Formats: sequence, C-alpha cells, structure tokens
Amino acid sequence: MIASASQLEEARAARASYRAGEVAPTSGVAHGLVQANLIAVPADWAFEVLLFAQRNPKPCPVLEVLDPGAYESTLAPGSDLRTDIPAYRIWREGELVEEITDAGAVWEEQHPDLVSFLIGCSFTFEAGLADAGIPIRHQELGRNVPMYRTSRACAPAGRLRGDMVVSMRPIPADRVADAVRISGRYPAVHGAPVHVGDPASLGIADLAAPEFGDPPEVRDGEVPVFWACGVTPQAAIMASRPPFALTHAPGHMFVTDVPDAEYLA
Amino acid sequence: MIASASQLEEARAARASYRAGEVAPTSGVAHGLVQANLIAVPADWAFEVLLFAQRNPKPCPVLEVLDPGAYESTLAPGSDLRTDIPAYRIWREGELVEEITDAGAVWEEQHPDLVSFLIGCSFTFEAGLADAGIPIRHQELGRNVPMYRTSRACAPAGRLRGDMVVSMRPIPADRVADAVRISGRYPAVHGAPVHVGDPASLGIADLAAPEFGDPPEVRDGEVPVFWACGVTPQAAIMASRPPFALTHAPGHMFVTDVPDAEYLA
Repeated sequence: MIASASQLEEARAARASYRAGEVAPTSGVAHGLVQANLIAVPADWAFEVLLFAQRNPKPCPVLEVLDPGAYESTLAPGSDLRTDIPAYRIWREGELVEEITDAGAVWEEQHPDLVSFLIGCSFTFEAGLADAGIPIRHQELGRNVPMYRTSRACAPAGRLRGDMVVSMRPIPADRVADAVRISGRYPAVHGAPVHVGDPASLGIADLAAPEFGDPPEVRDGEVPVFWACGVTPQAAIMASRPPFALTHAPGHMFVTDVPDAEYLA
Repeated sequence: MIASASQLEEARAARASYRAGEVAPTSGVAHGLVQANLIAVPADWAFEVLLFAQRNPKPCPVLEVLDPGAYESTLAPGSDLRTDIPAYRIWREGELVEEITDAGAVWEEQHPDLVSFLIGCSFTFEAGLADAGIPIRHQELGRNVPMYRTSRACAPAGRLRGDMVVSMRPIPADRVADAVRISGRYPAVHGAPVHVGDPASLGIADLAAPEFGDPPEVRDGEVPVFWACGVTPQAAIMASRPPFALTHAPGHMFVTDVPDAEYLA
C-alpha cells in the first residue's frame, strides 16, 4: 500500500509548516494518511508505557516505538518528532507545565534516553467515515474533536494507571451502524466505538464541557458516539506522575506518510 | 465469548495432569481453546522482549504480560505458569541448559523479577482448519508440528535480535486458499501464512529436518504452508544471549480457558 504523490506532498508540506511554527489541529490534513499521538518518556518508564498499551489496546494502539533518543519515525522518513508536530505538551510530575511548538530544547535536556511512542489516532478512520458520506461535525466547524475523561479505569501497568479518554462524534441515528462498521475495520487505530449514546454511564456529566478539544454541536436526530482516544496516555501521566513526559497537544497530531489502508484489518 | 463447561473441564484437567508430571505435545488438547507460548525473562530484559513483540507482531502476538514475579495467568484463573505447562526449557546466556517439567525451583532462583509473556500459538487456528475439514497431518500422526528457523531476520529491539521461526503444515493444493482465509481471521494468533510453498526461499534447506518438533510427512498434491511461530522468541534468545530465560518446550504449550473465538478479528 503506497500513498499517492499528492498525499505525500501534502503530508510533507504539513510537517514542514509545523516545523516552521504553524499551529493548527490536524483533523482533515493529508486526507487518507495515518496520524499519530505522541508520548515520549524517560527509558525508566518505557516498559510500563508499552505494557499499559498492551493491556489497553483500544485506547493505546501502538504504531511505532522508537529506539531511546531517536526522533525520526519510520512512518515518515525524514521526519523529526522534535519539531514536526504543531504543538507539544510538557509534563513534569504529572503536571502540565508548558505548551510549546518546538521540542528541540526539552529533547536535549532529556537526552539520551527519551523513548517515543506513536499511538494510533481516530482521525485515521474519519477519512473512511467521510468517504461514506458520514458528516464529521468538528471538521465542518473547523474545530478540534471533543475529548472526555471517562470513569472507566484502564488496566494498570506497574506505576502507570488512569481512566480511559474518549473522543466523541455526533452521528445521525441512521448512520450509527455504518460508523461502527467502518471504524471497526481499523483495529490499529482504535477500531469500533467503545460506547454509543448515554454519556452519563461513561461518567461524562456534561457533553458541552469536554476536558480536551472544543465543545461539540449535537443536532436533533444525532447520537453521541464515543471512540477510545489516544489522549488516554496523557490522562495516565496526570494520574501516575512520572518525572517527565512529552506529548503532542490534543488534536495536534503527527502526520505520517502511511496510507490509512495500511491498517485495514 | 465463554468456553463451554466441557471445554473448561478438559483444559483444567490437562493443566492438572501437566502439573502432576505428564509430558505430551498439546496440539489438539481442549479443542477450541487458546494455547500460548511462554517466555519469561528477568525484568531488565522485559522492555526489549515486549518491544521485539511489538515490532514483530506476526511471530510474536502478545496475549498477556504478567506483572514481575506473577505466575497466575488471567487467561486461566487458578493456573500456575510454574507447573501447568508439560515441559519447559531453561536458557542461560543463550544456551539451552535443561529441559524440565516443573519450573518451581528455577522460578524461586530468579525471584522476584521474572516477567512472563504469553504469546499466541498457531494451535489456535488449527481448530478452525480442522472444523473446515482441512487435515492437520501432525495431529493425525500424533506428532509435534515441525518448526524451522528461517533466513528472514526479525526487526531487532535493543539487545534482542533473531530470525523468524515458522511452523509448517502440508495442505492439499485445493485447500490452501481456505487455510489462508481461515487462519487470517485470527491475527492475534499469527494470522495468515507468511509463506506458501518454496521452502528454499525461506532459507529452509531440508523440510525433513526441522529445528524444532517432529519431521513432517508431505504427500503428493500437498503444498508446504508456513505460519509465523511463537518459538521465534526462543531463536532470539539463542541469538541474543540474555543471562536467563524460561520458555515452554516447543509444541508443549500453556492451555488456557479462553475460546479461540475470542481472538476472531
């Protein structure tokens, strides 16, 4: 499965633009190519992050684990994880201390043993939903997808624990089955929804107040549909307080050169 | 997905029998329940084993990673990984030093930091093949499945590297497509074959001389079909020489309580 020349050009241009300082959510960018969540931790925490992902594959589908200190992803040759994401978050002892657009300095500070994980992102299957004529509201509105911390605990791994985070898309009731079917074809990027309707039973008190991203707009005849979200490791960082972590900012993903179809089951 | 009472009874009886000292290959035991490969390593090597599996998912599909020192698998409540496998191998500095039927003493020696990995096994999809009327020759003959080290290198992970090991089943030419289709439904247990026919191009010089298991019997009109094999981590241990490792003996698996259907894609 090879990306088209125009797709690759768009992905490379996007990464170059973020490298030069542009900040924007990446939903809809380089349509048809995989986007990824980033979490980078000191080597001492790497096993627990990988184990957490293995035990919680729906929210944490691992696409790539880089060698300690490495920053060029095999999913995008020539890329630089220190600069090619639009916005980053720096976490110290579980506290969000800074949001930055270039992680070069902090990478240097943590050198040589920062281990980077790229985790699948639901933006991948959004392309499949859009291709099937299912509206992607947050894209239509030019907003970031709304994300919520749930009351559903992930399986812990050593020192790492936390609740699952979900992304939400309002789907017309007559297209919910299609949305389940289509996203289910992409198990490596969260797959089928974890929950359809009834936000309260996920522990979400107010749909209008997401913990991450922008508020949604749910219209008459639409049902809120929830997918496991790659921001889940950030919630685990808040709960587990490792000395340091570097992540992407929610909705601001790493755009790869890999076609979505590569992850079709 | 719940196993039937008679399946569970058979699985528990098998584990109890192995615990009491019985030694036999497990192919065909507790038909319809998942079997697993074991590899247990010191905690210092655990990240590399998990990373090796993440980078080589066809030969190393991880079903469970236990906490350091733990030996009761969640795939079989009440089980004891120290005793419930028919035969074990002990590896020191990459050398096979002993084959034993009870790992209690060596577990004690390595306590408290032995980390156990359960890896999917192709015996799982054999049930699907048999149900479709595809002959499983090594079962018919009461032998162990033949396994071969190939010339195909796995993606390395830190200190861990090695060549892929495959299992081989001779399949009637008119059932090869069915065998591909059916095994492909089980991506968590090696999935579709990695290779059909032409052993030489996998680096297999002599089909009659497998590195692990028993010699095959390939009949007229049959094609040798190769699946990625969970013995691959053992080949990696030989090549990478960690100070200690405990594995199952090839073909002598851990029988779980989990139905094969749990891993249907």
